[in-house]
Amino acid sequence: MSAPKKVVLAYSGGLDTSIILKWLQTEYGCEVVTFTADLGQGEELEPAREKAVMLGIKPENIFIEDVREEFVRDFVFPMFRANALYEGLYLLGTSIARPLIAKRLVEIAAQTGADAVAHGATGKGNDQVRFELTAYALDPAIKVIAPWREWDLTSRTKLLEFAEQNQIPIAKNKRGEAPFSVDANLLHTSSEGRVLENPGEEAPDYVYQRTVDPEKAPDAPEFVEIAFEKGDAVAINGEAMSPATILTKLNELGGKHGVGRLDLVENRFVGMKSRGIYETPGGTILLEAHRGIEQITLDSGAGHLKDSIMPRYAELIYNGFWYSPEREMLQALIDKSQEHVTGTVRVKLYKGFARTVARWSEHSLYSEKHVTFEEDAGAYDQKDAAGFIRLNALRLKLIATRNARVKG
Amino acid sequence: MSAPKKVVLAYSGGLDTSIILKWLQTEYGCEVVTFTADLGQGEELEPAREKAVMLGIKPENIFIEDVREEFVRDFVFPMFRANALYEGLYLLGTSIARPLIAKRLVEIAAQTGADAVAHGATGKGNDQVRFELTAYALDPAIKVIAPWREWDLTSRTKLLEFAEQNQIPIAKNKRGEAPFSVDANLLHTSSEGRVLENPGEEAPDYVYQRTVDPEKAPDAPEFVEIAFEKGDAVAINGEAMSPATILTKLNELGGKHGVGRLDLVENRFVGMKSRGIYETPGGTILLEAHRGIEQITLDSGAGHLKDSIMPRYAELIYNGFWYSPEREMLQALIDKSQEHVTGTVRVKLYKGFARTVARWSEHSLYSEKHVTFEEDAGAYDQKDAAGFIRLNALRLKLIATRNARVKG
Amino acid sequence: MSAPKKVVLAYSGGLDTSIILKWLQTEYGCEVVTFTADLGQGEELEPAREKAVMLGIKPENIFIEDVREEFVRDFVFPMFRANALYEGLYLLGTSIARPLIAKRLVEIAAQTGADAVAHGATGKGNDQVRFELTAYALDPAIKVIAPWREWDLTSRTKLLEFAEQNQIPIAKNKRGEAPFSVDANLLHTSSEGRVLENPGEEAPDYVYQRTVDPEKAPDAPEFVEIAFEKGDAVAINGEAMSPATILTKLNELGGKHGVGRLDLVENRFVGMKSRGIYETPGGTILLEAHRGIEQITLDSGAGHLKDSIMPRYAELIYNGFWYSPEREMLQALIDKSQEHVTGTVRVKLYKGFARTVARWSEHSLYSEKHVTFEEDAGAYDQKDAAGFIRLNALRLKLIATRNARVKG
Amino acid sequence: MSAPKKVVLAYSGGLDTSIILKWLQTEYGCEVVTFTADLGQGEELEPAREKAVMLGIKPENIFIEDVREEFVRDFVFPMFRANALYEGLYLLGTSIARPLIAKRLVEIAAQTGADAVAHGATGKGNDQVRFELTAYALDPAIKVIAPWREWDLTSRTKLLEFAEQNQIPIAKNKRGEAPFSVDANLLHTSSEGRVLENPGEEAPDYVYQRTVDPEKAPDAPEFVEIAFEKGDAVAINGEAMSPATILTKLNELGGKHGVGRLDLVENRFVGMKSRGIYETPGGTILLEAHRGIEQITLDSGAGHLKDSIMPRYAELIYNGFWYSPEREMLQALIDKSQEHVTGTVRVKLYKGFARTVARWSEHSLYSEKHVTFEEDAGAYDQKDAAGFIRLNALRLKLIATRNARVKG
Repeated sequence: MSAPKKVVLAYSGGLDTSIILKWLQTEYGCEVVTFTADLGQGEELEPAREKAVMLGIKPENIFIEDVREEFVRDFVFPMFRANALYEGLYLLGTSIARPLIAKRLVEIAAQTGADAVAHGATGKGNDQVRFELTAYALDPAIKVIAPWREWDLTSRTKLLEFAEQNQIPIAKNKRGEAPFSVDANLLHTSSEGRVLENPGEEAPDYVYQRTVDPEKAPDAPEFVEIAFEKGDAVAINGEAMSPATILTKLNELGGKHGVGRLDLVENRFVGMKSRGIYETPGGTILLEAHRGIEQITLDSGAGHLKDSIMPRYAELIYNGFWYSPEREMLQALIDKSQEHVTGTVRVKLYKGFARTVARWSEHSLYSEKHVTFEEDAGAYDQKDAAGFIRLNALRLKLIATRNARVKG
Repeated sequence: MSAPKKVVLAYSGGLDTSIILKWLQTEYGCEVVTFTADLGQGEELEPAREKAVMLGIKPENIFIEDVREEFVRDFVFPMFRANALYEGLYLLGTSIARPLIAKRLVEIAAQTGADAVAHGATGKGNDQVRFELTAYALDPAIKVIAPWREWDLTSRTKLLEFAEQNQIPIAKNKRGEAPFSVDANLLHTSSEGRVLENPGEEAPDYVYQRTVDPEKAPDAPEFVEIAFEKGDAVAINGEAMSPATILTKLNELGGKHGVGRLDLVENRFVGMKSRGIYETPGGTILLEAHRGIEQITLDSGAGHLKDSIMPRYAELIYNGFWYSPEREMLQALIDKSQEHVTGTVRVKLYKGFARTVARWSEHSLYSEKHVTFEEDAGAYDQKDAAGFIRLNALRLKLIATRNARVKG
Repeated sequence: MSAPKKVVLAYSGGLDTSIILKWLQTEYGCEVVTFTADLGQGEELEPAREKAVMLGIKPENIFIEDVREEFVRDFVFPMFRANALYEGLYLLGTSIARPLIAKRLVEIAAQTGADAVAHGATGKGNDQVRFELTAYALDPAIKVIAPWREWDLTSRTKLLEFAEQNQIPIAKNKRGEAPFSVDANLLHTSSEGRVLENPGEEAPDYVYQRTVDPEKAPDAPEFVEIAFEKGDAVAINGEAMSPATILTKLNELGGKHGVGRLDLVENRFVGMKSRGIYETPGGTILLEAHRGIEQITLDSGAGHLKDSIMPRYAELIYNGFWYSPEREMLQALIDKSQEHVTGTVRVKLYKGFARTVARWSEHSLYSEKHVTFEEDAGAYDQKDAAGFIRLNALRLKLIATRNARVKG
Repeated sequence: MSAPKKVVLAYSGGLDTSIILKWLQTEYGCEVVTFTADLGQGEELEPAREKAVMLGIKPENIFIEDVREEFVRDFVFPMFRANALYEGLYLLGTSIARPLIAKRLVEIAAQTGADAVAHGATGKGNDQVRFELTAYALDPAIKVIAPWREWDLTSRTKLLEFAEQNQIPIAKNKRGEAPFSVDANLLHTSSEGRVLENPGEEAPDYVYQRTVDPEKAPDAPEFVEIAFEKGDAVAINGEAMSPATILTKLNELGGKHGVGRLDLVENRFVGMKSRGIYETPGGTILLEAHRGIEQITLDSGAGHLKDSIMPRYAELIYNGFWYSPEREMLQALIDKSQEHVTGTVRVKLYKGFARTVARWSEHSLYSEKHVTFEEDAGAYDQKDAAGFIRLNALRLKLIATRNARVKG
């Protein structure tokens, strides 16, 4: 790979990415473009602009964008149509944000004539994979720079030295090592590393940042009604809202009731296990509600097919293959299933738990006429079941007969 | 089908199966053998014996058995090795009990020279299928009698008339229609029908019988440590126990903390949707803990394969195919994966929720040495990730190049 | 089910469906509408009109249609996009025709005000299921009459008696029992029953009707070039043709070279095994060519996903679920994959075998630059493979380390 | 990675691996142990011994072994139980041999106290992955040396210079570049590269080395009867034989009749497409016969499950994951299915094609009594089909009713 001439950097404004910014300038002598996205991580973005200016970035090379609606509409919601859970439990909050960031990096590179993109993910994690697979999938000629895999700033001390040598301001609370590492966006907050590295020890309470401890949550339950259209949430308690507004609102509700905490040991794509603490308050409610509305509007053939491909779909997103033909094929299958996933679900929130308690829909396939214990007026002929069972049993009978014969 | 001469009936001692008993005698003039199993449903069984005697069953034709250990050891535990959930949520508490009952019916038929078995499941549900597929799979020549599909006792009034005409005692509280129907065993209690038939209305609190309302559960959380060996729970809080004892103990704990309630609309095998209220206190804890121990002892390749076949495995059990070649093939796959699923999990119980907070094992695959944010002494070379990503990206780059070419 | 008033019958004009026609009139006293379709079975259809008139059908109730283009375009081609094979070998020639016929029956019923449809499939086979699932899926209120499951004409003698009593002409060669049963359409000819019922005996040569014995096929091979666009064949040897014309042409070529014979024991949906002799000359070439063009235009992620869902897709079609949400979801997935399946394949035909020998495409993903044994000018850095392998191996190493530890 | 001290090299005795041998000695100054396996590739092995001695290998460091029986019994046959085909067509002849070779390398390393293994596969192909994943899975501490990824002998000229400088004899016919590259073992011969690199050009006839051109094959067909026990071939034409003898015999028969040629463009694990010419004469017959015996002895539930996991199983083998938990789990599933796959198949060989024409077994599930077109004496009640269909249709009717309602 020849040296990059102009690099678009995923820039948070924090110490680490400021060091990267400077390192790119000094190591490669290249022009740097910064991209700072509001994904709902709950931080002010304007300080990033000032910092970038201070580090010598030209104003026209500073991109700061609110991508929350795009994030929820085009990434989170499509994923939730699938009820995606990685390894049975993880709602993929970090995984689903990376493709969007990388897509914007590549687009800004095209717009600014940059030949490279750079990110601050380490060489041990999944995020490097997600950033880079997306970048390569969208621009096969792009160069990708991952400083953590390249440089020799391999200790905290060396990083701080580099910062000082390069006049990068260091906030007082950044002098010491953080006790754990955090990633946040509108869907979730994840924490991992250091004090969390022993999965045999319970995570300390101060790790949780976005959800109240269930023990301190309100003593009274709260109900929320979520309306769906074609698989996507469109309203809360009767009020229509935009995708990001809905997720924001559900985050408030979930956070207040301590909903969506997860302590997980998961398998990274790069081959090792890691332990993460996830908080996904709104997403946890959304998954529960989406399942609730599917229960009455989705046919069993459709639902079982979805369930059977879900683990693969989730794995693709986790591994960084959002922009791959197979994810798009699975999305086509999933989206096809959602045409009638329209209706409303009531979810009860209480002390860390979100539980569907009612659901109704014009599109319901539930037929009280068929299922009733009462007289059904001929809707269903119970005698049909005899033939149904006998033909389902036929092959089992043939097996039993064969087995008796060959053992006899 | 020629008329049966001797029938083994799944007999609870309740009104309905007593009516069936008498109906078999009068309709077919056949000898009846009764089988009453203690599956942990929480009812005295000896009254069933008295009642059977009173209805004219010969003492040698009355079989009453405690099958709880067999139930948990040979049915529940193998199923939990798979983390089986039907339609994402249902722990299959009723489904998994039916094959055991039907197996014993067929075995008792062989032992007593009976040519038929009978059950009290209706023609609308899944249980008829589960009973009958098992019976046919184990004895292809057996006759199966399902009175609810055959007789003309199609209303409560007619049933009570038949009971009175045949001197079947009717408990006072059985005169009226029960507000919902219940099935219970050591794994769960399910409730459905009548007051529950509208899935748009929250289930009334009196439906729940086995778990305390989370709002009335203790205000302090409780922790439980579950030890596993090769995928099966073997001890609680350091005390080794038999399978049924473990499940009983977990039920107590779960019930006390309101764990394991589920309000579900599911798809029956016979083609309609139905709404059930499930309480699976111990099973819910067990699933959470089993996942917890798998997180550190199961490799990603093994785990993802298990996840991908789980929906099919669960569907087979739900549909009644426990005794089928494909269930046994999947079981072989699952059991193979559990050889190192050995270790201990700590689960926190609080107000309806069970959450893994710690897990440890001699068989752990978690490598702090690899995952650490600190210096890893060469355990992992971050530069390897560059090649890993580039080769994973190669096909995506070729696609992007091709797409640009043909659009160009 | 109340008695039907007006029935649309799938009518071939042959003896069996003429008997059904008359039986419907006499048994139900209902008006009969006949539908006779040209699916490429190679029979004149006009005699069916005369015969229907003779049996008292009103001219406006006689529907005779050439549906060959619709059959290939909307049923055969979508299925071939999936490379569908039932049980590894069967090209689904009969299965794929049934939904089209049943769809037209239901449409004609709507048009003529009929309340029922009828077909001539027996109660042992798959075709009854395919006809009826389609009918119910398209009109849930339709009545379906399957005379073979209802009447008492259970022997050849009784059928002939009924025909004579009702002045149905019986061709001389129909007096005796046919040595086997045949179904044919543009995609295939299937033969089964009677002389073919012992799968341990080779099928006699006279069973084959559409393909020459490979031993008598031309001694010189022949090459054919098939062009595809988005997964569908569009031209043969450079000449653009309609779907049905393409299949007709491939049938000629395949038949001449003895291509597409299959002797199969398969599993029917109704639970028994049956043995069929299939001849699918054009379809066999088409499958080979479609795979050939996918080899260079389809990415591995897309291809492997397609392969993994194919068995399920084929089973759905075999079992009669063409008009089901899950088939449509899988079709959406498959169709999404075909966007670049455009290009040309050369197939060699010789003595019963069709083999791809070359393929080329503007949409090719094959990169000689990458794969070459020669100097590749940096297209591929072999050192990347080291990291790729090491990270793929990491989990295997962790397993081996663990296993050594716990055994040690 | 620290420098290796003693290396076990997969050594063929040919020019390339002789250069590697010498390069290991000179580059690393390490002791070299050679391992040369007879996998049925059809070459004398003793010349490899002489050559190794000549290159300075101590006699006790030269390992030459006939592993043909182990190869077929423990690798080829288990794989054929699955009917494994990669990308629908490839019988995995190269893939399945690599784990055995790598396993022996690791075992010999343990035996001789070596700390590394080395192989002659390039950095572009799959074989490097297969060798190395196996080595790491069996000994996580082993070092792996892949000279093609390391050295600077990147052209034919440089290789020959190195050989000359190191007194490695060069056969005259090795001076020039071979027109294509070959790998062979008892299961197959593969050819790729150079003259085969354009998939749009038919492979020249001289590429094929193991099968006669079908056009030159005998004009009379030949029949072969293959007996199976529990899924493995055990006898040919009534004569019991060892696994390797069976495959050898089938290779003779297939080769004579031109059976098993394949021209394929496949997807390599490392991300690129490549074109290969495969000849698998015996394996092609074996697959056909194995499918034939499964047709009558395997239940549909078992068979469809096997079919659905087969693509994944094949991909695992192709990608080098023979020694992985998930391959072993799938193998457990597959082996479980084979308990009754016992019986005999007759296959017709003619001009390049192998076709099952008859099969019979004591373990057959085929029931002529059920399937017959004749009177079946009550084996099957056609009326059962009505209920079977109606319940299968119920959900489709509910969908149609719903769809009409919401559109109405």
